[in-house]
Amino acid sequence: MDERVREHAEVLVDWSARVEAGDNVVLSVGPDAHELAVAVAECLGERGANLLATYSSGEVTRAYLRAHDGDFDEDPAHELAVVEQADVYLSLGGGRNTSATADVPTETRQAYNSARAGIRETRLGTRWMSTVHPTRSLAQQANMAYEAYQEFAYDAILRDWGSLADEMDRLKRILDAGSEVRLVSIDTDLTMRIDDRTAVNSAASVAYDSHNLPSGEVFTAPYATDGEVTFDVPMTIRGESVRNVRLEFDEGEVVEFDAEQGARVIEEVLETDDGARRLGELGIGMNRGIDRYTDNILFDEKMGETVHLALGRAYDANLPDGESGNESAVHVDLITDVSEGSRLEVDGEVVQRNGRFRWEDGFENA
Amino acid sequence: MDERVREHAEVLVDWSARVEAGDNVVLSVGPDAHELAVAVAECLGERGANLLATYSSGEVTRAYLRAHDGDFDEDPAHELAVVEQADVYLSLGGGRNTSATADVPTETRQAYNSARAGIRETRLGTRWMSTVHPTRSLAQQANMAYEAYQEFAYDAILRDWGSLADEMDRLKRILDAGSEVRLVSIDTDLTMRIDDRTAVNSAASVAYDSHNLPSGEVFTAPYATDGEVTFDVPMTIRGESVRNVRLEFDEGEVVEFDAEQGARVIEEVLETDDGARRLGELGIGMNRGIDRYTDNILFDEKMGETVHLALGRAYDANLPDGESGNESAVHVDLITDVSEGSRLEVDGEVVQRNGRFRWEDGFENA
Repeated sequence: MDERVREHAEVLVDWSARVEAGDNVVLSVGPDAHELAVAVAECLGERGANLLATYSSGEVTRAYLRAHDGDFDEDPAHELAVVEQADVYLSLGGGRNTSATADVPTETRQAYNSARAGIRETRLGTRWMSTVHPTRSLAQQANMAYEAYQEFAYDAILRDWGSLADEMDRLKRILDAGSEVRLVSIDTDLTMRIDDRTAVNSAASVAYDSHNLPSGEVFTAPYATDGEVTFDVPMTIRGESVRNVRLEFDEGEVVEFDAEQGARVIEEVLETDDGARRLGELGIGMNRGIDRYTDNILFDEKMGETVHLALGRAYDANLPDGESGNESAVHVDLITDVSEGSRLEVDGEVVQRNGRFRWEDGFENA
Repeated sequence: MDERVREHAEVLVDWSARVEAGDNVVLSVGPDAHELAVAVAECLGERGANLLATYSSGEVTRAYLRAHDGDFDEDPAHELAVVEQADVYLSLGGGRNTSATADVPTETRQAYNSARAGIRETRLGTRWMSTVHPTRSLAQQANMAYEAYQEFAYDAILRDWGSLADEMDRLKRILDAGSEVRLVSIDTDLTMRIDDRTAVNSAASVAYDSHNLPSGEVFTAPYATDGEVTFDVPMTIRGESVRNVRLEFDEGEVVEFDAEQGARVIEEVLETDDGARRLGELGIGMNRGIDRYTDNILFDEKMGETVHLALGRAYDANLPDGESGNESAVHVDLITDVSEGSRLEVDGEVVQRNGRFRWEDGFENA
């Protein structure tokens, strides 16, 4: 076995999920994530945790959903019971075809997801983590050769997370103390309020309220957004290519938009509900192990020298206790490159210029 | 998809497990049983059942068990909860290597199984079924080419089960009414009592107390065995080849044994406990779709024109209510060919001669 697969498993089990003896662990395994599942199982055995492996296959789901009449039972008891009794839920993504469920009707998918709201909520109450095994299908989606993709993925995953967490904490403290963020970049000049909001230091560990591996971003929940922003990082949203989306905000709400490509899907997102026209997240990518876009949001939004904003639902972790933030059925991330011609200000002070943070070498001349 | 995979799925879901709308179904999927899992998922969607897929991989289990210190938690709550809430449990066997767990220490495996007794018992209380997807690894174990093995497996699985159930019912009624069975064959002359025992018509359906697909045998729980028997069907038991085992019984108990090959493992079995020296099962194979030995007990013991006897534990289904039969930690099947020089008598009447039953054409001249 590739030594990097073992290291990935160890990071996931120890740093990310903080697994201990006696923990009831659900391991959700994608069909091509088998090798990572073997490595994680070995770690779980060593730690004395209890392992239950589930099978997460797009093809199985597609067959089931397409055959079903769409009238789904609510929170089936056997599925609910598993997450209720789980301490830790580790999702190992890795299928054979990222478009495996492309022909499942949207209404069927939505009905299925709605019927499982209780299961989803309960799972979010566990120490849950999502990661992916670098597969050929993800390499293809990234337009990369398989071995090159493996190197890319492990550079992103096998960081010195403790030291990145320390660095991200600097930005978190600045955001927690600040009231207004201004992002200036090519075709972008946007201000957002962040008073009373708490930034999350997303260091790929449940100990940091962070549930993705890789992670490496600091995010908060902005409001009262004004100005315009252009997202120049190419993405696929709901199966469609999206390029150079431009949004104009007034008093927190999108008042105009266009896109070089994918305007239709952006319109669809914006029309979901009121919350879909407001921001739910401002995230600042700080994982320099991620050095290119691979059309996979798990990686792209954490890329160093990028900033992302999400239309839709805000995360509770950013809000004062008991307060609810922007509510919406969607949470759609859009990403902009800030490596050139850019600056990020908090209360008028420049925190990042052309991709360099003010505590980094080269900030002065950036 | 091969149409036979779909037919296999339909037999499993409808004839075998009698799945209905609203059933909570656990689908345990072997790594190479993916295609069958897709077909079963489609059937479950059509029936409106609720699907939870689990992943059953020998390699994952091996990694976990070898890394564990052997002090396993008893019936982990998340695993137990799944089977407690399941109506139906479908196991789709199919790995990549039938020896995947060969180097797991026996004590570890036993400790793991002992710690899961409650989970196992609960699973046996569901409408459970075991089947296999014909994989390359099973073809290899059978010494067969892959396509030839597929044909073999589907001949065994895709029977007219209703009509076979009717035929097997004839034998069941004879055994239920009988008191003594005598098996005479090459190097074999054995008598067993079956008073008060109920034969199971194992027609590959939970409606018949039958949990294997393929099945096709009638079995009961004999006692007071006397005489000698030779098992000429080659088998692998606990990883070791076993050939021409001869057992001699006196008053129900094995008093002498030898074997052309594998005597050591037979000795190990016999020494497990008192019950291991007594019979727990007499089974009569009636699936003529199975026409060769493939070193897989799921198929071999159901082969037409064979009889098998098991050392060890008897099944409750054969016993009067509340009565316990032969008890043992083991249940080890051994098989003998009855196609030539053989007869099976119940209370002195010949029921099967040289493989032909008395209701079949050719019985008189067999």
